[in-house]
Amino acid sequence: MKQFDFEEERVKQEILKLGAKRVLIQFPEGLKPEAPRLAKIVEKFGVLPIVSADPCYGACDLATAEAESLGVDLIIHYGHSKLVKHERVPTIYVEARATLNVFGAVEKALSMMEKWRKIGLATTVQHVQTLDEVREILIHAGKTVAIGDTRRLNYPGQIIGCDYSNAISIAKNVEAFLFVGGGQFHALGVALSTSKPTIVADPYDNTAFSVNREAEKVFKQRWASVEEARKGKTFGVLVGLKPGQKRLEEALKVKEQLEQNGKTVHLFAGKEITPEVLMEFPTVDAFVNTACPRLSLDDATKFKKPVLTINEALVVVGKLSWEELCKRGLLES
Amino acid sequence: MKQFDFEEERVKQEILKLGAKRVLIQFPEGLKPEAPRLAKIVEKFGVLPIVSADPCYGACDLATAEAESLGVDLIIHYGHSKLVKHERVPTIYVEARATLNVFGAVEKALSMMEKWRKIGLATTVQHVQTLDEVREILIHAGKTVAIGDTRRLNYPGQIIGCDYSNAISIAKNVEAFLFVGGGQFHALGVALSTSKPTIVADPYDNTAFSVNREAEKVFKQRWASVEEARKGKTFGVLVGLKPGQKRLEEALKVKEQLEQNGKTVHLFAGKEITPEVLMEFPTVDAFVNTACPRLSLDDATKFKKPVLTINEALVVVGKLSWEELCKRGLLES
Repeated sequence: MKQFDFEEERVKQEILKLGAKRVLIQFPEGLKPEAPRLAKIVEKFGVLPIVSADPCYGACDLATAEAESLGVDLIIHYGHSKLVKHERVPTIYVEARATLNVFGAVEKALSMMEKWRKIGLATTVQHVQTLDEVREILIHAGKTVAIGDTRRLNYPGQIIGCDYSNAISIAKNVEAFLFVGGGQFHALGVALSTSKPTIVADPYDNTAFSVNREAEKVFKQRWASVEEARKGKTFGVLVGLKPGQKRLEEALKVKEQLEQNGKTVHLFAGKEITPEVLMEFPTVDAFVNTACPRLSLDDATKFKKPVLTINEALVVVGKLSWEELCKRGLLES
Repeated sequence: MKQFDFEEERVKQEILKLGAKRVLIQFPEGLKPEAPRLAKIVEKFGVLPIVSADPCYGACDLATAEAESLGVDLIIHYGHSKLVKHERVPTIYVEARATLNVFGAVEKALSMMEKWRKIGLATTVQHVQTLDEVREILIHAGKTVAIGDTRRLNYPGQIIGCDYSNAISIAKNVEAFLFVGGGQFHALGVALSTSKPTIVADPYDNTAFSVNREAEKVFKQRWASVEEARKGKTFGVLVGLKPGQKRLEEALKVKEQLEQNGKTVHLFAGKEITPEVLMEFPTVDAFVNTACPRLSLDDATKFKKPVLTINEALVVVGKLSWEELCKRGLLES
């Protein structure tokens, strides 16, 4: 994977500076196959590397408790930018910036954006360094370009799986979004958060495509889940156990609101919330997920029961209308 | 599930005694469907119950870190007896003793044990209270009966998924084992640990059956895994992150031994070790699992690569012969 900068020299300097003896290395799923190679490089710096094998979908998933349990004095977290405010264990974030040229993919995307003039840009941390260049290409093609910066994330224009504030902040001023990056996961988040047409410029495949049809499908599916949940009598409110996903207070509030609505409510806590985990509780009619909101939206067809976001639960109890929720965006929290 | 004693009154008294305000409730997979009902009973005692949704396969899996993270002041752990010596969070074990009559199943088992006279008894904590009665039935049928007690577990004759010391301690003096309990998982452990014919008396289905053929299959499969691993160049040593499964020192020792044998070795740490988790590391030829040994033995066909126990790794590096390993039993640790 020469497509990414793994910053070996900085990692080495940080290890020496900290005098670390044992490090825990964390990778998101897409980069995990690189783990053995990078662990061996780190081992040459004189430390014992332990690779975290558990799923990791974001910096919300920092393996702090695991690091403490293994007596590790440094976490090297690859592929995400800092999210948790204070780490209990010293942590280096290696953002794994892509070294790919984006020009070809952006040119292809442009040919799909002829009917729009005002374009918003969004990207993941892997490509934030390309946004200046992408803006120039778009301006050269006669577009006006907006890049949001709410300072909630680390870079202007950056989005992460569950935070689209940079895109939302400029949504009113643009006709469509151009997302620079791989796959449809993040671009779909932009579309669901802003309800704007969203085109992907994918530099890995050197292709461009729209996620609008998929976004429409998700909106329809969410509506169906909310309607199904309305009929439910017994609810499970899910509390996430990952450091950046634990929202116990919100879960308690949802429990109270559902109970005021005549529902029977149970609290469930879990690290990995999967269809198999929820199937163990067949008497529960519907779940409300206060952990990663992407679980509800992206895995909906895999779950046998409705798994609502917090805002969707507010629709069920009548505190929010479906129309208002759509206006706010499905990923607002 | 009126088949089990969930000790509601004791749970209530313990909650009141501790003045607990918030409890985390853990269930093994088979009892999880009972969780909502029992959580509501506990809630009536004036505490906030949170049900752990994560998989739980034994008392090795005590959700201590999760309890601390949720600010819980009591764990109620159902279905297993105490295993971890010192709990960091106050913990009640509700062993969920079965209330079933075992007579019918034992009578059926007896008809399958005509050729043996000396019988060893083994059971899970759910049925330890029946062993006196089972012994009487067997003695009445002309058998001599042995029940092991090494004091490693809480009750004479008790076995758990990874500890068969009570069965092993009497194996030399018996011709076959009678296991009292449900399913083949624990009985298979008896057969693999003792290499003795093992008959199950299952009071849930009121049936009896042998696990000998299944045990033979596992022995053959393990031999094939060891042979395949021998050819591997790159090994992954797995460290479990569950409180009762973490064996980092053993993992480091295995790493060293494999490296002395010319292998390239990586350390991986994980909470749930599944086929999907290991598939993220395609450059690894074989794994050595220092966490739950049952993962290696029971899920072998699901894993794409060999996943050896620590003793099987010793066979690979030539420190132990396959014959000696078989003599010690596949689950010796």
